[in-house]
Amino acid sequence: MKYFEMPTALSEADAVILANGDFPKHEVPLSILRNSNYLVCCDGAINKLKHTNIEPQAIVGDCDSLGVESKERYAKILFRNPDQETNDLTKAVNYCLEKGMSNLIILGATGQREDHTLGNISLLLEYMNEATVQMITDFGIFTPVDSDSRFESFAGQQVSIFTVAEGEITTHNLKYPVHKRTFTNWWQGTLNEAESDEFSIETNGKLVLFRIFK
Amino acid sequence: MKYFEMPTALSEADAVILANGDFPKHEVPLSILRNSNYLVCCDGAINKLKHTNIEPQAIVGDCDSLGVESKERYAKILFRNPDQETNDLTKAVNYCLEKGMSNLIILGATGQREDHTLGNISLLLEYMNEATVQMITDFGIFTPVDSDSRFESFAGQQVSIFTVAEGEITTHNLKYPVHKRTFTNWWQGTLNEAESDEFSIETNGKLVLFRIFK
Repeated sequence: MKYFEMPTALSEADAVILANGDFPKHEVPLSILRNSNYLVCCDGAINKLKHTNIEPQAIVGDCDSLGVESKERYAKILFRNPDQETNDLTKAVNYCLEKGMSNLIILGATGQREDHTLGNISLLLEYMNEATVQMITDFGIFTPVDSDSRFESFAGQQVSIFTVAEGEITTHNLKYPVHKRTFTNWWQGTLNEAESDEFSIETNGKLVLFRIFK
Repeated sequence: MKYFEMPTALSEADAVILANGDFPKHEVPLSILRNSNYLVCCDGAINKLKHTNIEPQAIVGDCDSLGVESKERYAKILFRNPDQETNDLTKAVNYCLEKGMSNLIILGATGQREDHTLGNISLLLEYMNEATVQMITDFGIFTPVDSDSRFESFAGQQVSIFTVAEGEITTHNLKYPVHKRTFTNWWQGTLNEAESDEFSIETNGKLVLFRIFK
């Protein structure tokens, strides 16, 4: 059964992807951004790095929106992908997958247009077949779930289970137990609570799990 | 068939509800907030009104988090509801429904914790049986849809259809036509586009539709 730790300021991944939503403010995503092994920046997010001393290893996207200055400054690490069928986040993930990376963290993918936020969260369920891909926000971590899984937690941690494609859900070690239940609206799985340092979920549906930071 | 206009700075509703997410920045929700007929404030959001000259007609919630000063200042319009099974947004909506109001606009319900954002958006589908309830953000408007509906639009407007409970969807007058299709992931219905001043959706599922501002 897969096990997913809570991220810490020291969490490492093969690559960190910075998307074009709100730039991270919380210490955990900020530290992960600053200490990444390999940073891939969606092209729309590159301007947000200018006021930092963080240098990406790759910039991926359609690159249409990049100014002349950025195109020159980053010429050697620009990977232009004009595909109209995928968004910049998916282009960045695919870039990492093609390099054989198998453990990715996405930052900065929420907090602006809500349609982009919802789309980006749900894309985790597409990426999960190829790699372990989680999204860290200023409030917690989103993990895609399509089979029985275990999660690191802490007593009192708020935990929300969002159903993307319906399926039966059973939880173990959550304050409000769920037993072979199918959620028919997103709010039904919100604001559950971990009881100790681990909980688990059994499901045959497609879910995204959200655990908040301590 | 129900018809949903795009909101403007002059849009009116029986009541406007201010939730405890990000305070509005866009001119349309700000104007609607300033010119409301009746303003209901979720108790967690009352501090955000302090730096404005906007006075609510009612404050609804469990009121546990209100300071002594606020409790005294607003004593006559505080409606305490300690129910643990509903969140403050639902308490505010129920307060309006009990007053016989049938057309509500929710503001400030996104932009902070993503689990709250997702939960709040999905609650629109619960409220719709009792009243017309839409959510306006800094980027556009969310409308719950569970039957054939028509929508005001403009050529080139980005439109996203999020499936909350699966059902067949057919669209008319959108750039990327959907014909008797069932979406199995949220991103599949994102970033469609209106072609003119109206489009329509037929469905037997439960959806939330997002239209962005011009």
